[in-house]
Amino acid sequence: MVNLQIPDIIVGRLPRYLQALQRMQQEGIHSTSSKEMGDRLGYSAAQIRKDLSQFGEFGKQGTGYSIPFLIRQLQLILKVDRIWDILLVGAGSLGHAIANYNGLVNRGFRIALIVDNNPQVIGQKIGDFIVQDANQIQKLITGTGISIAMLTVPASAAQSVAEELVKSGIKSILNYAPVPLSLPRSIHVEYIDPLIQLQHITYYLD
Amino acid sequence: MVNLQIPDIIVGRLPRYLQALQRMQQEGIHSTSSKEMGDRLGYSAAQIRKDLSQFGEFGKQGTGYSIPFLIRQLQLILKVDRIWDILLVGAGSLGHAIANYNGLVNRGFRIALIVDNNPQVIGQKIGDFIVQDANQIQKLITGTGISIAMLTVPASAAQSVAEELVKSGIKSILNYAPVPLSLPRSIHVEYIDPLIQLQHITYYLD
Repeated sequence: MVNLQIPDIIVGRLPRYLQALQRMQQEGIHSTSSKEMGDRLGYSAAQIRKDLSQFGEFGKQGTGYSIPFLIRQLQLILKVDRIWDILLVGAGSLGHAIANYNGLVNRGFRIALIVDNNPQVIGQKIGDFIVQDANQIQKLITGTGISIAMLTVPASAAQSVAEELVKSGIKSILNYAPVPLSLPRSIHVEYIDPLIQLQHITYYLD
Repeated sequence: MVNLQIPDIIVGRLPRYLQALQRMQQEGIHSTSSKEMGDRLGYSAAQIRKDLSQFGEFGKQGTGYSIPFLIRQLQLILKVDRIWDILLVGAGSLGHAIANYNGLVNRGFRIALIVDNNPQVIGQKIGDFIVQDANQIQKLITGTGISIAMLTVPASAAQSVAEELVKSGIKSILNYAPVPLSLPRSIHVEYIDPLIQLQHITYYLD
């Protein structure tokens, strides 16, 4: 079903569609239309129809989409029909916030391991975790199947830590450090950068 | 110069263009093209040309864009040619991480005030700040010109806190709580949600 040629920008919109559908389901709604999804998300109905059509035929002209069915299909496409273990790198205040965030599990993810390179932090407890030594990453993740890392280290350390992660077998990184990472093309990197959203906000302010 | 009819989705791409240009400038590059910007960002050259053309004529056929000029124009359009004061609501671990994040100031923002409603947290020091009482928000921000809030409270409290912020004169909110906010249309809300990016990442994993 999955076509590897689908533009990344379209793939990036699917989690938003999934989220909107899950919210509708929580509100007790059972079916929807491209128009209604678009209104919620700020996209045109045509855009949503076109994006979804890249992956298959999910709705019927006139009756729209079954929400439980479309949720299931998007979960399969995005591979969040399972739980993914995550390596959290960096046990500073942001690392603590992520480790204590309880919004991950219901949506396909769970922190499996926390590491830091600060000797004063290694061995500390965060929730149910003991912070492990970042220098042991390779040993720690061998055989665990962990392929995703969240990176919350200082900007100055991000590149070298990311290179270590890749050597240890990490395939994708969600980077909170405010620097771009230069890594092999096969490694998928996403960025969390509040500045991008703040600069979007100010456009509308006086 | 600003056309209020410009789709929000286009406005949302401008900070990414600005960021790419600022990185090029740091790398010592003085001029660029829609093609080069597109290659860096994963957009087509046509998309970038079309987006920028909504706001004016910034480049010349054949010679491309002057990077310092285009940076300046985007800063003016996004109104980040000044420093915006931010109210940080919630002094938990995420609030701490944001308060200690030093990537804001160079890019047009500064935390001006931190509030929380937990009596055990009010009065605590975070960096140079004393955490103030969230029940005093209206009094605290009157006359300060603060119109942006970053919201890092628990999901269960986010809606009621956001309503209080709007009553106190806040015009836009960057929401870290994993719930949608229902607020008057005039209030611009942006969301930081790592799940959206994690679910994007897994598409590419096996």
